Amino acid sequence: MSEPVAPNLVTAVSEHRQWDRLMQMARLGSITGADGSPGVNRPCLSPLDRQARRLLIAWGESIGLTPTIDALNNLFLRMEGREPGLAPVLTGSHMDSQPAGGRFDGIWGVLAGLEAIQALREAGITPRRPIELVAWTNEEGGRFAPGCMGSMAYAGHSPPDTWDAVEDGEGTRFGDALREQMALEADLPRRPLGIVEGQAPHAYVEAHIEQGPRLEAEGQDIGIVTGIQGSRWFLVELRGESAHAGTAPLSMRRDAVQDMLRAITALNALMDDPTDILRFTVARIEVHPNSSNSVAERVRFTIDFRHPSAAVLTERGEAIEPTIRAAVQHCAVTVTERFHALPVEFAPEVTEAVARAAAAQRLRALRMPSGAFHDAQFMVPLCPSGMIFVPSRRGISHNPAEYSSPAQLAAGARVLAQVLAELAEG
Amino acid sequence: MSEPVAPNLVTAVSEHRQWDRLMQMARLGSITGADGSPGVNRPCLSPLDRQARRLLIAWGESIGLTPTIDALNNLFLRMEGREPGLAPVLTGSHMDSQPAGGRFDGIWGVLAGLEAIQALREAGITPRRPIELVAWTNEEGGRFAPGCMGSMAYAGHSPPDTWDAVEDGEGTRFGDALREQMALEADLPRRPLGIVEGQAPHAYVEAHIEQGPRLEAEGQDIGIVTGIQGSRWFLVELRGESAHAGTAPLSMRRDAVQDMLRAITALNALMDDPTDILRFTVARIEVHPNSSNSVAERVRFTIDFRHPSAAVLTERGEAIEPTIRAAVQHCAVTVTERFHALPVEFAPEVTEAVARAAAAQRLRALRMPSGAFHDAQFMVPLCPSGMIFVPSRRGISHNPAEYSSPAQLAAGARVLAQVLAELAEG
Repeated sequence: MSEPVAPNLVTAVSEHRQWDRLMQMARLGSITGADGSPGVNRPCLSPLDRQARRLLIAWGESIGLTPTIDALNNLFLRMEGREPGLAPVLTGSHMDSQPAGGRFDGIWGVLAGLEAIQALREAGITPRRPIELVAWTNEEGGRFAPGCMGSMAYAGHSPPDTWDAVEDGEGTRFGDALREQMALEADLPRRPLGIVEGQAPHAYVEAHIEQGPRLEAEGQDIGIVTGIQGSRWFLVELRGESAHAGTAPLSMRRDAVQDMLRAITALNALMDDPTDILRFTVARIEVHPNSSNSVAERVRFTIDFRHPSAAVLTERGEAIEPTIRAAVQHCAVTVTERFHALPVEFAPEVTEAVARAAAAQRLRALRMPSGAFHDAQFMVPLCPSGMIFVPSRRGISHNPAEYSSPAQLAAGARVLAQVLAELAEG
Repeated sequence: MSEPVAPNLVTAVSEHRQWDRLMQMARLGSITGADGSPGVNRPCLSPLDRQARRLLIAWGESIGLTPTIDALNNLFLRMEGREPGLAPVLTGSHMDSQPAGGRFDGIWGVLAGLEAIQALREAGITPRRPIELVAWTNEEGGRFAPGCMGSMAYAGHSPPDTWDAVEDGEGTRFGDALREQMALEADLPRRPLGIVEGQAPHAYVEAHIEQGPRLEAEGQDIGIVTGIQGSRWFLVELRGESAHAGTAPLSMRRDAVQDMLRAITALNALMDDPTDILRFTVARIEVHPNSSNSVAERVRFTIDFRHPSAAVLTERGEAIEPTIRAAVQHCAVTVTERFHALPVEFAPEVTEAVARAAAAQRLRALRMPSGAFHDAQFMVPLCPSGMIFVPSRRGISHNPAEYSSPAQLAAGARVLAQVLAELAEG
């Protein structure tokens, strides 16, 4: 089944150049983790994000790619193909990071796409179809929840104004931040949002670090990603009453922190899973007025719930609000679902191309689902889609200690280059 | 036992003037509560605090009081007495508020002192001793924890540089904010911090709203405060490890939010008190990185623990850290005590003067301890000290819905005026 390797193409992928670009990007928002690891905090639609985009555009233009942006600020860099009018192959990922994120999540998929396209150029290959490199807006949801806004809007999953009123931690609205960024990029040519003139992409392929421990633990080089588990995000608000911590008797309080404790304890029981497949996380808490001697008047906390089974996602997800209401004793309860992505399966056209490329390059490859969600899952309804994973050290991600080696990342870019060449020739 | 009322003095207290000044102060940092109530957010050492201080100084100077400030930015407005060289009677409270505070907590005690002194002036009374009106720095601890820094430093309870490194929610250090405020008040005359030339104040009396429900519930006008329950404040830090909410199995996480849940649940059991006298509050929580899809790496939460019994404060207070350590499963634990105020009893010289004034004015008065702590408790070791309470509607405080009526506040100021006249004549 293995196709012959295109040796010029594979050797044209530069491990050093890709790593050097990753490290240049990592300086834009560099932070230091608790263990001294060099991490990144680069929120979407921030000055750092704009710097990173300008740097990417400069690199793309130096190899003849032309930039465009759409109404969600998704950034595209296009390499023309041999035959005009054909649907493009799309590759890319995102450039925003978690607030205490690593140097590889997202940005590597963008730079691997750039490296693969540059290798095609240097190998003298111009495929039949155009190839477009895309950097999706706000995949992480770290500043504005939920994530994947750019790809969701592109795919028509949600109207582009869906999140205008979403606020970041400082009260800035997504719609305002987006308008500001679009104004500051007024010099970049615009393209329509989403599918242009009814022409869906020919295929979508996204390179990404695994963000889990499997590839490393099993001694594999490449993950052939078969699909993505489903995710549901909720925002819970509990409204009680503030009071003086020294005078108000505990029996008379409507303490939102204590009701949060009851709610999360009950949710832990609801989400109990001896198989350890279910993912349930409360990771963001905001208390008001958040003063040590004023009983909490209001608490907001988030729920991140994921499972590969649509049935489990539906059943336990629908039980979240009643579970909270039954547990809470004194507060008014509001539960808002902010994100709901069904589990998806990737297309054999892409997974088999990844498998062939890995085999041709004598890399060890494993078929596996993705625990994290990615922009790729919103592309599934549009065109044959898939992903390429490389190992993450100790499976650590969303953390400055996140790490994949230059050689591991170069192997991923070589597989991507061959997959793009094959898909864009098809 | 009742002394004759000084009728000129009592009638010189103006309900309207005092209320008007309170409402002028309430505009500096005005906020609106969840129920539409007009509240105040005026943090210490802020531009709003400086505006409020300038307004107070202007009112004081208009009746011949002279301002000075000390190294902790405590503000004094002095009325000279008939006999030079005598120790002053001190009265006052604080001007900072909780982040979502009311219009009366603290500021009324300062304006009641001003009203009482103005009434003395207008009644043509110059007592033997000077009277000093004081506005203590950072009583609330809402911006910089703990509270009562100004009075603690004045009383020699803590060295004045104790809190220099304490940070507010935005990372500003107390020492830096204090230096900035002192520089912006460079035109105000300085006085030494604390007792001047070994001469303690002759007495200290502080007017304050009750912040609890008793006076209203029992139909009383005046609280003759007999003492203050003890307080201990702790900061708890739990350090786990961040991870990706979609990929990290729950069994492998070191989730600081989940360990916080275990810690507070265990503390609730430790602090259980069927008599409902004990006050235990967790009201401030900070999660890092506080992103919905990154498992929490670190949580900090506060404990506010109060009780009238020193033995209970000691016994259960010392059990806090072992209780947390036993409950937490995955995180490193740090527990820091940030405030420890023993229960105090006020001096009969002051409580009896309050009782006499209330009786002379035919007000209904109740002897009662204070649930809230106040600057007055740090004055107890220095000089005969005491407090005057007025009713708080529904006992609500640390909340925009905090309310005492113009008439209730005027009654408190009339009692204070008579107490000051008596103490300053002694």
